[in-house]
Amino acid sequence: MKPIEILRKELKIVTDLRGASSLLQWDQETYMPAGAGAIRAEQIALLDTLSHEHLVGDLVSGPLGELVDLDTGEPKWGLSDEESRLVREIWKDYHRAIALPKEFVEEYSQTTSMAQQIWAQARKENNFTKFAPILEKVIKLKFREIDYLGVKTTPYDILLDYFEPGMTSAYVTVLFDAVKERLIPLVQKIAASGVDTGVELLRRDYDVDKQWDFGVKILEDMGYDLNIGRQDKSAHPFTTSFHPTDVRITTRFNKNNLLSALSSTIHEGGHALYEQGMDPEWYGTPFCDAVSYGIHESQSRLWENLVGLSKPFWSYYFPRLQKVFPENLSNISLDDFYRAVNTIEPSLIRVEADEATYNLHIMLRFEVEKLIINDRIPVAELPELWNDKMEEYLGVRPGTDAEGVLQDVHWSFGGFGYFPTYALGNLYNVPIFNQAQNEIEDLDIKIASGNLIELRNWLGEKVHRVGRRRTAAELIVDITGKKLSANPFMDYLEDKYKEVYLL
Amino acid sequence: MKPIEILRKELKIVTDLRGASSLLQWDQETYMPAGAGAIRAEQIALLDTLSHEHLVGDLVSGPLGELVDLDTGEPKWGLSDEESRLVREIWKDYHRAIALPKEFVEEYSQTTSMAQQIWAQARKENNFTKFAPILEKVIKLKFREIDYLGVKTTPYDILLDYFEPGMTSAYVTVLFDAVKERLIPLVQKIAASGVDTGVELLRRDYDVDKQWDFGVKILEDMGYDLNIGRQDKSAHPFTTSFHPTDVRITTRFNKNNLLSALSSTIHEGGHALYEQGMDPEWYGTPFCDAVSYGIHESQSRLWENLVGLSKPFWSYYFPRLQKVFPENLSNISLDDFYRAVNTIEPSLIRVEADEATYNLHIMLRFEVEKLIINDRIPVAELPELWNDKMEEYLGVRPGTDAEGVLQDVHWSFGGFGYFPTYALGNLYNVPIFNQAQNEIEDLDIKIASGNLIELRNWLGEKVHRVGRRRTAAELIVDITGKKLSANPFMDYLEDKYKEVYLL
Repeated sequence: MKPIEILRKELKIVTDLRGASSLLQWDQETYMPAGAGAIRAEQIALLDTLSHEHLVGDLVSGPLGELVDLDTGEPKWGLSDEESRLVREIWKDYHRAIALPKEFVEEYSQTTSMAQQIWAQARKENNFTKFAPILEKVIKLKFREIDYLGVKTTPYDILLDYFEPGMTSAYVTVLFDAVKERLIPLVQKIAASGVDTGVELLRRDYDVDKQWDFGVKILEDMGYDLNIGRQDKSAHPFTTSFHPTDVRITTRFNKNNLLSALSSTIHEGGHALYEQGMDPEWYGTPFCDAVSYGIHESQSRLWENLVGLSKPFWSYYFPRLQKVFPENLSNISLDDFYRAVNTIEPSLIRVEADEATYNLHIMLRFEVEKLIINDRIPVAELPELWNDKMEEYLGVRPGTDAEGVLQDVHWSFGGFGYFPTYALGNLYNVPIFNQAQNEIEDLDIKIASGNLIELRNWLGEKVHRVGRRRTAAELIVDITGKKLSANPFMDYLEDKYKEVYLL
Repeated sequence: MKPIEILRKELKIVTDLRGASSLLQWDQETYMPAGAGAIRAEQIALLDTLSHEHLVGDLVSGPLGELVDLDTGEPKWGLSDEESRLVREIWKDYHRAIALPKEFVEEYSQTTSMAQQIWAQARKENNFTKFAPILEKVIKLKFREIDYLGVKTTPYDILLDYFEPGMTSAYVTVLFDAVKERLIPLVQKIAASGVDTGVELLRRDYDVDKQWDFGVKILEDMGYDLNIGRQDKSAHPFTTSFHPTDVRITTRFNKNNLLSALSSTIHEGGHALYEQGMDPEWYGTPFCDAVSYGIHESQSRLWENLVGLSKPFWSYYFPRLQKVFPENLSNISLDDFYRAVNTIEPSLIRVEADEATYNLHIMLRFEVEKLIINDRIPVAELPELWNDKMEEYLGVRPGTDAEGVLQDVHWSFGGFGYFPTYALGNLYNVPIFNQAQNEIEDLDIKIASGNLIELRNWLGEKVHRVGRRRTAAELIVDITGKKLSANPFMDYLEDKYKEVYLL
């Protein structure tokens, strides 16, 4: 076998082990009996350690060393452009992994596994003090991780780069500032408009089984293939993939919030289309891997917001929804419903935020994370800091830590640098969707007739099958012809909400 | 750390990997999307290969070699009796595993994974020809396995020893002959009695959700802990364990067969009590492992038959069942119901057989398996051979291979030697239960008042927590004071069915 073939065989082992670990985590969130948490954390840590060991072991470094310079990642002479790209991306993963000692990986996996369980308990009990000690441990592990990896610009940039390769916090700041400049006045104008969008109609009693069935119908229309996927319930919705032929989503329901489960189903469906749309031929390699977390999020938010909160979408689905819930919706017009689902209102909880104020929640987290990682502020100061920033950004102050600093799981698993990718997803998805509008004839009309599959196919070709052949920055230029900017997103928001709120 | 502690740490890794593999298999049978079969087989094969490699690698053989002679398994001087027992049992597993090359383990796992999928398809299509080629491959792998392990008495004995350590086919034959001698006349007398047990009443419409709830209630009464267990639906009921704190069962329902799901739920519940009752302190070692498949089966069958088909049991549960299904049962007396659930009737399908004729199904398989493994009869001859033996033993001839040689999954996963343990379970469980009757005051009265937990606790102490500290033969002598014989089982059957069939 050629070195590249040997390498792919060994990387498949790494990826199969990660897939097994992901299944154990999926099970933990869906069906695992409550009493099995301790042994499960150990089993997951074992699989994570084994996949790490295999990635940094001789079986990978041998063939990889024949293809690139192991110190610099420079591809050897004689490789095609595609091969060079592939081995350079493989080397990036290898290089990052080999910096971390096995003991560290094991301790990290076990500590974060435990931290997630303690966080869930602390949030339930609204008790930050319970979470603080293990959070400190996780943060200390992040400091060690940063030491292993070596600081280039700021410590936070090292962590950000894991989720959004090539992105810097300086550039995120530029983008976020540009958003802030237009978003804060927009949100203020909306608040001052006095318009009632009639959101109350979404808070009536909506049978949960009917919500489930309606969500599944939309998923199928989007092209989510249930022969290689499935939906389950969990406390927090998520998407997970063990291979392009096994991509699962979860959702949760609120009887008195019609939009909550539908939005989240469409959102996870967008992630799932990305995973199902990857090229299984390249499974185990970066070519069958997401470009970045931000690009992944662009796919979920494109479907959730640009499609799922649009008038064409609801002109098709609202009459069908009326038939499912005639007792609540028969006297409601499409315009009423459209306004209700597009309510903008500052609120305390990120995952329940609308598509405009959502980004302010992210900016707050971005700032707090930089203070934690770059400036090492004490964990004990986090609740107060959080609440102050909530007032500054959103004009609301959490009454409890459960509604404040304890609301997100991310820090418990060490996901510092993850949050910015949520807002980047919003910035990526508008230019991508605008380009789809340009390239797909009558896309709005198609969506308005329930034809979502052409958009899925277009995204499949432009994004899903590309994998890490391109960076996020390159991909955006490839698709739209322009560098990423905050303007398309803000233009979209302003245009849309001027109409909804009669500004 | 002392060698024994190092050894236990490494064995825990082996067991965690097996647990992960078992979760992947559980998922495959319960929730996995249909299209994910191919990658799942590869992921399971990887985990199986890794656990095998770890068991036979230096990290295990190093400390094990300090505790036993690696060639003979003889414990070194200075170990306590318990330590000697432990390391000897560990060595048995090690010795058996190291005989098999890694390539063989991988090929075996992948082939049997595929064979199970092909078998399911072939059975569905009633097409033995479709299954025959892969079955031949599996059998050839078994021949290779036997060569690696080395024949002592007969080739079949090597395989039997895996499921029932210490048991020989010669001794199985002695036991089965003793059963046959009394069982065949008993079944003939029953058939000739002309008694109608009114089994029709079990064939009425029984709502499946209500069946589920009633089964769960019984499981809870048995002491099955749903905080460290759960029940799901699958095509074929099974029990699986990833640790004593995560023991799961599955069941299936037939609207028109009230006994099917109830019996199978109680049966799997018996297996699950064994697994939940093991000593987690010794997880990863033979002391937290079942004595044998036969002893495991004794636990399921004790609950399913000796308890779940008994008059004390139904004197408590039948009035409750009547309340759940008044439309079918309100005019039925306890005696009527007891007779109906204890119907003896030769039939084609093993898993639907009653507690008497069941053993004839096993004897047939035992003979056919010896012909396959010892005498290498061609696969093509199996359907005819099967049907002839069905006529000989049970007086019924399958009309199709789906109802004949294709009915069981076991051969597809290479489980030759497994079947005899089902009948051994019947032979073990009667003397064990008789002893429980001697030692637990008024056991029948307790069962008749819904108190099943004392029996569970007694079994926990006598069987579940023992693990492989004792062999099956030793365990039976420990508990009952006597060597295993077919007489207690046959005495039980004759006494019970003389009454039911008025013989």
